[in-house]
Amino acid sequence: MSSIKPITLHAHSSGPNPWKVVIILQELELPYTLVYETPATIKSAPYTDVNPNGRVPAIRDPNTGITLWESGAIIEYLIENYDTEQKISHGSQSPEKWLEKQFLYFQVSGQGPYFGQYTWFARLHHEQLPSAKERYLNEIKRVIGVLNTILEGKNYLVGEKATYADLSFITWSLIGQNAVESAGVDLDKEAPNYVAWMKRLLDRPAVQKALQEKEKASSASAQ
Amino acid sequence: MSSIKPITLHAHSSGPNPWKVVIILQELELPYTLVYETPATIKSAPYTDVNPNGRVPAIRDPNTGITLWESGAIIEYLIENYDTEQKISHGSQSPEKWLEKQFLYFQVSGQGPYFGQYTWFARLHHEQLPSAKERYLNEIKRVIGVLNTILEGKNYLVGEKATYADLSFITWSLIGQNAVESAGVDLDKEAPNYVAWMKRLLDRPAVQKALQEKEKASSASAQ
Repeated sequence: MSSIKPITLHAHSSGPNPWKVVIILQELELPYTLVYETPATIKSAPYTDVNPNGRVPAIRDPNTGITLWESGAIIEYLIENYDTEQKISHGSQSPEKWLEKQFLYFQVSGQGPYFGQYTWFARLHHEQLPSAKERYLNEIKRVIGVLNTILEGKNYLVGEKATYADLSFITWSLIGQNAVESAGVDLDKEAPNYVAWMKRLLDRPAVQKALQEKEKASSASAQ
Repeated sequence: MSSIKPITLHAHSSGPNPWKVVIILQELELPYTLVYETPATIKSAPYTDVNPNGRVPAIRDPNTGITLWESGAIIEYLIENYDTEQKISHGSQSPEKWLEKQFLYFQVSGQGPYFGQYTWFARLHHEQLPSAKERYLNEIKRVIGVLNTILEGKNYLVGEKATYADLSFITWSLIGQNAVESAGVDLDKEAPNYVAWMKRLLDRPAVQKALQEKEKASSASAQ
């Protein structure tokens, strides 16, 4: 892989979405350069020339010349272009391909936004709205419950190996399970398949590397 | 296309996500059979055997044997399998392919969920929370503004023709623009590129057919 030039990844030091992409980059052993955007840089040029939506992540890949935003599209792009050995996917000719995409779409549309709304009302909203917070806490519980049901008798969401479909859930899951456990939910009891699956994913060396880098970036920006 | 067997689409009579898929089916002139789920059927078997997340849309395609949920994954599937003449896409070998996916991911993760939260707090939540409603109204304005900026000097989001990337925004846009116009926003003035783009999309015969079918289903279920 030494002939691959580093992919630039626009990120921020905390926040789950860019780090979803770092996990995939680490799993695929791809070289990358992180560029940290801040609240001061993210909503104006030059960053909005990269992503007019003013959000991270976005990538620029000098190997293909592409600039791309939206974590789901970036993950699909990295898999199709660089997971040629099918390390974390089943390949573009497999029937599993569509199920992998299904779960990635579930993650980006059904997990991330709702877990994010909980964080908003729990930490950032200018007034306390207990029933809004409760709505999203219930949604976190519901999504964890759906994953737990799907994982009954299975180690991974699609097929017999960890794929990008599983890996894409990690960063938001860590936030969500912290929220429901703080609210008194015993996940070991309520969602044992989910808990075992998360442990399996967190044990992966590439995932650990990505999360350690996230931790380091987050600590540095807090100083 | 007469050799293609009808694709079963699980939907509900109102609500934007299944009808996003109907627009794509109409554009591709694919035969389909709608099965309407209701609040009484959607959260239990046999429907949860189709989609354990208990949401619509989901499809079952007898031509390939696949069962698939998540509107984004379904749209990607329909495009790759049935848009062989590249009527509403640029094809799997084109550089535009990744931009189409980028905008589909923006729709499913950045438009649908936020526009949906507005609807929730405006119509369904058990107590009035003006600042929650305002949060999501502002997000609708922001997303329309982002689309308006991207569409500056362009007729469509990707390349010179309407693609599934554009078409996927229609059903939620109709809800969102109704909300901001009710709040006094003059979209003709504030977002002229966006307004012209929506008009261009709504003028398409396939889009009209899909929205007429939605209207009919919605009226029938209200009786």
